[in-house]
Amino acid sequence: MSGKVLALAGGIGGAKLVLGLARVLGDGELVVVGNTGDDFNHLGFSISPDLDTLLYTLAGLADRSRGWGRRRETWKFMAALEQLGGPSWFRLGDADLALHVERTRRLASGESLTSVMDHLRRELGVATRLVPMTDDPVRTRLRSGREWLDFQDYFVRLRCEPAVEEIAYVGAESARPQPEILALLGGKDLRAVVICPSNPFLSIEPILAIPGMRSAIAQCAAPVVAVSPIIAGRAVKGPTAKMMREFGIEVTATAVARHYARLIDVFVVDEADVDAEVPGEVECVTASTLMVTLADRKRLARSVLAAADAISRSR
Amino acid sequence: MSGKVLALAGGIGGAKLVLGLARVLGDGELVVVGNTGDDFNHLGFSISPDLDTLLYTLAGLADRSRGWGRRRETWKFMAALEQLGGPSWFRLGDADLALHVERTRRLASGESLTSVMDHLRRELGVATRLVPMTDDPVRTRLRSGREWLDFQDYFVRLRCEPAVEEIAYVGAESARPQPEILALLGGKDLRAVVICPSNPFLSIEPILAIPGMRSAIAQCAAPVVAVSPIIAGRAVKGPTAKMMREFGIEVTATAVARHYARLIDVFVVDEADVDAEVPGEVECVTASTLMVTLADRKRLARSVLAAADAISRSR
Repeated sequence: MSGKVLALAGGIGGAKLVLGLARVLGDGELVVVGNTGDDFNHLGFSISPDLDTLLYTLAGLADRSRGWGRRRETWKFMAALEQLGGPSWFRLGDADLALHVERTRRLASGESLTSVMDHLRRELGVATRLVPMTDDPVRTRLRSGREWLDFQDYFVRLRCEPAVEEIAYVGAESARPQPEILALLGGKDLRAVVICPSNPFLSIEPILAIPGMRSAIAQCAAPVVAVSPIIAGRAVKGPTAKMMREFGIEVTATAVARHYARLIDVFVVDEADVDAEVPGEVECVTASTLMVTLADRKRLARSVLAAADAISRSR
Repeated sequence: MSGKVLALAGGIGGAKLVLGLARVLGDGELVVVGNTGDDFNHLGFSISPDLDTLLYTLAGLADRSRGWGRRRETWKFMAALEQLGGPSWFRLGDADLALHVERTRRLASGESLTSVMDHLRRELGVATRLVPMTDDPVRTRLRSGREWLDFQDYFVRLRCEPAVEEIAYVGAESARPQPEILALLGGKDLRAVVICPSNPFLSIEPILAIPGMRSAIAQCAAPVVAVSPIIAGRAVKGPTAKMMREFGIEVTATAVARHYARLIDVFVVDEADVDAEVPGEVECVTASTLMVTLADRKRLARSVLAAADAISRSR
């Protein structure tokens, strides 16, 4: 099958499948829509954690064990900042810092985030288009008790410890979707939409909250495939499972499938979840979804594409 | 003799004598007025090269062989910035960067440069007060032919190669002098004013160009001592000698003494310049002014203070 593949992704988990897709697809066939709800301003820098994890992963620069930032990173800047009494709760590596400085500089000169990220991925030799969901500011905030927390406060400073009762994507209602994404979703050159195994609430919902995005995906001609971030009742990494429990949702692939109902055509679950129940109109496909090696990532990418292509052929 | 010593200084040459003064004076006896005419905004950071060289020198963190920045510095940020296609003509070390980030952050939150530098020197355990000449922006610019160059363009990017015909201290005419400096100059607790062996045109003149500064120094009750930056017809470092030639001034200690006439009481020349001629009202003192070791710096500092104290006693 030919045509472009549009992948919706957050950071770590999403980036794994994105890398697999990039490796099995031809240059220019993959377009990645990155979540910007985690973006924030820190020390004067515009920081886009999910876009950066995707960029570093695609460029082969990501630190795999840490899960964020660059490999072979050094921390001299942070040590000096602490020595000067500066804020040190958000760790910025010496090489990683260059990305934030260069992005902030370009944004300040009037470039859009889309243009900046496109410049950066080209400089790093990344063939895959990496597109922010919007160029407008969207900020994910979380309510715990009476307190609304900024995302990075919750995620990094408080290590996801507060129980989350409510999530808001501040700014989403007035944000303009990235036009390239809508054009792709409305066009005929789309092979599949892939919802990566990212946190549904923190990584995928912010994208869907941009006006026009959810309906464009639901109505697009190509098959929409989601991969479960829950394997055998657990999340591979991050607060997905904890958050589902806090929301009173059972921590199962079945619950995630229900969450994405009316949006997706195929739901890919792990072989451990062969008993998962998906809504009637959704096809359930089983694959090995735990991605440890690059081979795992490519294998899952092929399974996802095969499932999408099977739907296309059956239509 | 007791009382405070006020030292006017630029970067490298000035910082050497400042360190000597700091080591021979008691804690709190030395106040350093730093030139901010070299300050500029780069990559979004507020950078104060002379203040930083003074700070690093006083904190024992300066790189002696390079003459700027921190010792045991690493350059991972710069390498990553180049990889991303960012501007790399101005080198910022990984640790040095923290200083610029923290200063920029504090300035953006509304702190004055004076307050920021005072915070930073305390965090680094520096007992000496380090005061910018003004909190208002002053930018030294240089005319070469028909072109006006920004200071760092001239100094770093073009390596002082253009012939300078004219210098402007843009903003100086409306800048407010740092009140603490004027209070010290007008008060009775001043033991001496020391004009360090910095570039007279690039480091000292911007300070003197702040309204009220020159007259406050000329009229202060304490002796004013200048140390020649020219030794045996040469500058130890930097473009001082080249600039004097371009201005049609002979490259001698005598010419520097004439430049500071009506401002100083004592002019300290190197033993190599024992024949230097100074204006009638100025006393000429000979000392070993080449500062290679810390002992050299302390010895010259003692000579400078002794010359000032001798004037005070003779009045």
